[in-house]
Amino acid sequence: MTTADDLADRVRDGELRIHELEAHADHDTAAEARRLVVERETGVDLETIADYGFPAAEAEPNIENMIGAAQVPMGVVGPATVDGGAADGEYYLPLATTEGALLASVNRGLSVIGAAGGATARVTKSGMTRAPVFRVDGVAEAAETVEWVGENFETLREAAEATTSHGELLGVEPYVVGDSVYLRFAYDTKDAMGMNMATIATGEACDVIEAETDASLVALSGNLCSDKKPAAVNAVEGRGRSVSADVEIPRETVEKRLHTSPEAIVEINTRKNLVGSAKAGSLGFNAHVANAVAAMFLATGQDEAQVVEGANAITTAETTADGGLYVSVSLASLEVGTVGGGTKLPTQAAGLEILGLRGGGNPAGSNADALAEAIAVGALAGELSLLAALGSRHLSSAHADLGR
Amino acid sequence: MTTADDLADRVRDGELRIHELEAHADHDTAAEARRLVVERETGVDLETIADYGFPAAEAEPNIENMIGAAQVPMGVVGPATVDGGAADGEYYLPLATTEGALLASVNRGLSVIGAAGGATARVTKSGMTRAPVFRVDGVAEAAETVEWVGENFETLREAAEATTSHGELLGVEPYVVGDSVYLRFAYDTKDAMGMNMATIATGEACDVIEAETDASLVALSGNLCSDKKPAAVNAVEGRGRSVSADVEIPRETVEKRLHTSPEAIVEINTRKNLVGSAKAGSLGFNAHVANAVAAMFLATGQDEAQVVEGANAITTAETTADGGLYVSVSLASLEVGTVGGGTKLPTQAAGLEILGLRGGGNPAGSNADALAEAIAVGALAGELSLLAALGSRHLSSAHADLGR
Amino acid sequence: MTTADDLADRVRDGELRIHELEAHADHDTAAEARRLVVERETGVDLETIADYGFPAAEAEPNIENMIGAAQVPMGVVGPATVDGGAADGEYYLPLATTEGALLASVNRGLSVIGAAGGATARVTKSGMTRAPVFRVDGVAEAAETVEWVGENFETLREAAEATTSHGELLGVEPYVVGDSVYLRFAYDTKDAMGMNMATIATGEACDVIEAETDASLVALSGNLCSDKKPAAVNAVEGRGRSVSADVEIPRETVEKRLHTSPEAIVEINTRKNLVGSAKAGSLGFNAHVANAVAAMFLATGQDEAQVVEGANAITTAETTADGGLYVSVSLASLEVGTVGGGTKLPTQAAGLEILGLRGGGNPAGSNADALAEAIAVGALAGELSLLAALGSRHLSSAHADLGR
Amino acid sequence: MTTADDLADRVRDGELRIHELEAHADHDTAAEARRLVVERETGVDLETIADYGFPAAEAEPNIENMIGAAQVPMGVVGPATVDGGAADGEYYLPLATTEGALLASVNRGLSVIGAAGGATARVTKSGMTRAPVFRVDGVAEAAETVEWVGENFETLREAAEATTSHGELLGVEPYVVGDSVYLRFAYDTKDAMGMNMATIATGEACDVIEAETDASLVALSGNLCSDKKPAAVNAVEGRGRSVSADVEIPRETVEKRLHTSPEAIVEINTRKNLVGSAKAGSLGFNAHVANAVAAMFLATGQDEAQVVEGANAITTAETTADGGLYVSVSLASLEVGTVGGGTKLPTQAAGLEILGLRGGGNPAGSNADALAEAIAVGALAGELSLLAALGSRHLSSAHADLGR
Repeated sequence: MTTADDLADRVRDGELRIHELEAHADHDTAAEARRLVVERETGVDLETIADYGFPAAEAEPNIENMIGAAQVPMGVVGPATVDGGAADGEYYLPLATTEGALLASVNRGLSVIGAAGGATARVTKSGMTRAPVFRVDGVAEAAETVEWVGENFETLREAAEATTSHGELLGVEPYVVGDSVYLRFAYDTKDAMGMNMATIATGEACDVIEAETDASLVALSGNLCSDKKPAAVNAVEGRGRSVSADVEIPRETVEKRLHTSPEAIVEINTRKNLVGSAKAGSLGFNAHVANAVAAMFLATGQDEAQVVEGANAITTAETTADGGLYVSVSLASLEVGTVGGGTKLPTQAAGLEILGLRGGGNPAGSNADALAEAIAVGALAGELSLLAALGSRHLSSAHADLGR
Repeated sequence: MTTADDLADRVRDGELRIHELEAHADHDTAAEARRLVVERETGVDLETIADYGFPAAEAEPNIENMIGAAQVPMGVVGPATVDGGAADGEYYLPLATTEGALLASVNRGLSVIGAAGGATARVTKSGMTRAPVFRVDGVAEAAETVEWVGENFETLREAAEATTSHGELLGVEPYVVGDSVYLRFAYDTKDAMGMNMATIATGEACDVIEAETDASLVALSGNLCSDKKPAAVNAVEGRGRSVSADVEIPRETVEKRLHTSPEAIVEINTRKNLVGSAKAGSLGFNAHVANAVAAMFLATGQDEAQVVEGANAITTAETTADGGLYVSVSLASLEVGTVGGGTKLPTQAAGLEILGLRGGGNPAGSNADALAEAIAVGALAGELSLLAALGSRHLSSAHADLGR
Repeated sequence: MTTADDLADRVRDGELRIHELEAHADHDTAAEARRLVVERETGVDLETIADYGFPAAEAEPNIENMIGAAQVPMGVVGPATVDGGAADGEYYLPLATTEGALLASVNRGLSVIGAAGGATARVTKSGMTRAPVFRVDGVAEAAETVEWVGENFETLREAAEATTSHGELLGVEPYVVGDSVYLRFAYDTKDAMGMNMATIATGEACDVIEAETDASLVALSGNLCSDKKPAAVNAVEGRGRSVSADVEIPRETVEKRLHTSPEAIVEINTRKNLVGSAKAGSLGFNAHVANAVAAMFLATGQDEAQVVEGANAITTAETTADGGLYVSVSLASLEVGTVGGGTKLPTQAAGLEILGLRGGGNPAGSNADALAEAIAVGALAGELSLLAALGSRHLSSAHADLGR
Repeated sequence: MTTADDLADRVRDGELRIHELEAHADHDTAAEARRLVVERETGVDLETIADYGFPAAEAEPNIENMIGAAQVPMGVVGPATVDGGAADGEYYLPLATTEGALLASVNRGLSVIGAAGGATARVTKSGMTRAPVFRVDGVAEAAETVEWVGENFETLREAAEATTSHGELLGVEPYVVGDSVYLRFAYDTKDAMGMNMATIATGEACDVIEAETDASLVALSGNLCSDKKPAAVNAVEGRGRSVSADVEIPRETVEKRLHTSPEAIVEINTRKNLVGSAKAGSLGFNAHVANAVAAMFLATGQDEAQVVEGANAITTAETTADGGLYVSVSLASLEVGTVGGGTKLPTQAAGLEILGLRGGGNPAGSNADALAEAIAVGALAGELSLLAALGSRHLSSAHADLGR
């Protein structure tokens, strides 16, 4: 039997490369060998990284060259009271983060939301996108290609959907720039985040387009998708779930629990989240939605790089007719799933279970919808809490106390 | 001695709230009690989350309401050969992710970069920002306030720097929108990411401004900072480190190792990363820089929500005079630190140690600079590899093989 | 009969206000009276402004408080050889401008394009938009409103189209932000630019929505239209016509006529128009498309403020397989008409007649399509010429010779 | 003596090209000949275009290939009461437009502003920019170049300022993207809009950079300037003048004169100009600032293509402590001059004279500052009026009455 020491020796001797070790030993031994390689070369002790709580083989779909696990503190806040299109009832929200004061902030927000009877949430648009780019002979052929695509949607749909048991092609939006044609395919991917499903399905549709037209595929992603980049196309048109949450809070609650007034919060939201972001040339008109998104993504096995699009959010605040406070948050492009990807890993699966949203929903897609709504409510709570904190001017002291 | 069971009972009975448990027991017991609360209410088994490898008390600066830890698979790629302004030599890069195929992709890129003699990297701008917003009486007073700030920079510098032993105020940029004045303070925060340092120092400067002018502070952050939002002000002017990395690869290496040509990569980069992103209204002109940033952030204790700004990156590709390939990536706003925040947590500290960049650098700031350069090289490798994969058209099949 | 002097006296005496004069005299006398008012108060001689070549009454639909006309030098360039979807053949392009060197630049470009056999142009998307904003009770009602709109498109179409003999409602795209619902109505407005047609038709549809749902109209334009503002929604999705033009130029022609090389132009286009604009956080990836757009808008009676959206353009440049140069320009949101608005004014009508595109086309919409294509070719010529000028480094000297 | 007929014949016969006619006859005859050429080829009567009121030779710095003039209806609104940093007192504002209802709208706004005691206006930032792009050997050389520029500002200043008697170099901001270095030069160009001055001065500085460093100039404009493109760099950092105007209007005035309430206007401004533009991915958070800018640009000889940047404006609205209305507009990048360019043409010079702002100011720059302030007040009036019109829901009917 090959030992980790043997493998590490062979890497040192140039016989093996570090990504080849799983071919020569089980996954845990391979990970141990890699740690040895790094420890020998750098003198670092990787014991803490080695202290992971799952068989390395289970992480095979999620990582290569594994050496162990990063451990990120996880906590819960809530319960969050949610009246959603899919979510309904009380939820503890799991968050994993290293950002001190974040859970305290969200928890405070949820507490106030709860006192006000809970938050409402709705998914208002849905669709995972992939946008290949084709080379054509010029703008005349570009126009012909666009026309062909418009006339042959059914053909493309059949090709795309043949690759998936769940996914449905919702539409194809064309964009022409000179001799490049971009086709933004949008899919209903049910409870999966759906990036891979969309990629594979679109690949099949691209084969049809190449066979039937003169267009040549340049790249299966032409950045009009747009994945993991800050992009207006997502902020405007949505990607994954477009989800909104809101709450109406009585004036008395704002004053007693948040130590500020509805008017102060409205003013801060306008000058900071609306006008400040406007002046900053931003696609994010909020205070710190990305914090809740990142922490709930980590805790539930979502793709951390998609926090980028998760930050495409607008927070609004108004006074109500009876002197209370209305606050909403609308996330344009929240890409989430409750199956596939990182959701199968043990701690992440547990995170989803805390929410009662692990695996496929009934009907299909409802678990991912509910997850989106739960994240939106978490983000709403964070917004409310930070706006209130700014209102009472203790942002820096809160960080001084809790942050470091 | 209070047990976790006792605490959980008292939460159930409404005597305690879940954020109050650390006042009644040690941190690990409090975490256990919280797990019990959640387990009882949801019927979920949180054993895997309980399997964390550090004393809960150590995570106190990083989280509240802790129940355990999320474990994210961590691996290493490389070694990366880096000729940096601060980084120099060979580095294994630690990445934590659940995105299958990512480490394989970056590793392949680094291998090719190594074969080409390594990558060059430089930090070209540096400064952590915080931008409070003030209310003034109107545009006349706004103009006066801007003038006052211009004339009293030294006073503001003294006030701000009095709060910090390391930080230096580099400048204050004013922006006027009607009766709101935004002042973007930029600091050299050395090896700290610096958000809290900047917030506290700016708070002190704000006190001076309120005392000496008629302007009233509305919020310590007015979103022109801009933290954790996609914003042009960061993409254009930078925040944290602006860092670039590049490499020149001989034609033969491109053909033999990447199975494509320099011309194909240049075309893909142009149609996808430049023109496609242009059409998408994007601030990210790259393929998947956020992937490397998110994974290295997780592995080294950075703030995951700042992946948002980390995605403000431009990738360029050109053919060289001798038929080779030049590729670069420039990240406008990479906010990193090697001290403070999540860097003290055990697995994250180990991640930094793998890089040899844990703690303060000598000179101060050089470790964070080197970390920025290492991340940039990781991102460069990922870009190179994905562009090449698109070139040889196996993006979807790579995911099919590795991703799920 | 009231004289201009009388009217001016009465304005001076506070009996009349300057916008009331047409009620007391014919339009030319009213304009004369207004000039007198201004001349008396400011001591300025307005003779040149008085020297306008059309009856003031004819400008009634275009201006109030008229005092005369601004005279902007107009010239012609070309002929432009255009192979368009609607345009076909040779066109002299009329441009009105005060920007020295502009016509020379466009003319040079057209000359080279002509030598290369002409440019190709196509309208690839079309639709004038108007997006009212509604207030709803919260995100739940927002979701219901969106659903209602989706299910009642035919009802909205009938209401909208009842207001117009030509316009057709193409679609309604909903956007939710908290308790605001935006509905972007898109119309085929044929040969009219269509802003007013779209506004009136949408107003009617809004009445239906208010009658049938609980949503309340806040403003007939909610800025997702988006008219006369730089906005990604237009740059990405288009407004008015999305039109592209391109040309392939033999290497020899580039060298002999433009004194540069295809490679130099490609490099400049990449570093300036693509990467430079990317770094600038721009929605315009071109050199000076707005110049041609503004000048042709002025010469043909278009709305000068819509030059804003006309600048949402991407220029691309590539070397061709045989060493030549391919250049394209794609304008996302060119709002043009050949009927209505300023097109009826004498000099502007003459501008359209130079193009042979005055009035309604056959089929309807073809004249406006052809105008869009002609402008795109003019813009293409300007891009080509400026890129070449930058290539041979005489931008500043060209301005030194011609500009002042 | 050569006649227009002769010249037209020679063009027909291929002996002359249309841009060569001024070499063979005086400017008016050349223009006549060009009209003949067009008339013969197209059968169009260009009499109206021929009816221009200035010697063609005077327009030589502004146009080539002249055939006559476009006549755009010009009117006046006001008087506008302005308390500016440079402007002071009452001003009739000249506007040239074909957009019916525009002057009525601005006039109504000015009337209300006047009733409220006038508007305040201030220029809060100033600087005309030009940003060349250089090619360097890679990111290491990019960093060196940036460092060199930082250390040699005085040398660059001397070189740049040697080309101009008035202009002053204010600063140079570097941006690095891979092997491209962009340097954004900012100048105080006094009463000139300054684009040409900045271009020529920067050209000289570029010569120094090329002589002293290894950087090679690729293009004198690298689009980070950014001229005539919608770009965040201008919206955030400013270009030309950053100018704000505001007014406080008593509640009673809002109700009686505008037939709406401060609360209604604030709500419309928030949902439309702030949230709607946010959702649109816009750089323009206003209703129709571009209308006033375009019309005043035309009437005063500004560059119509720079309306693009003129639309980078934010409108804010608040209720005041005593129940009144505060409205402001802030234009980030208004590029104006009172000398040079189109300001010398007769009708445009008269437009400036109506304002009392023709030619150089005392002190230098004050006339252009005052022009910027006057335009800002015109834009403010337009915003106020349109917001009020939306409030009382007669946008479409106003257009129905006035627009067509």
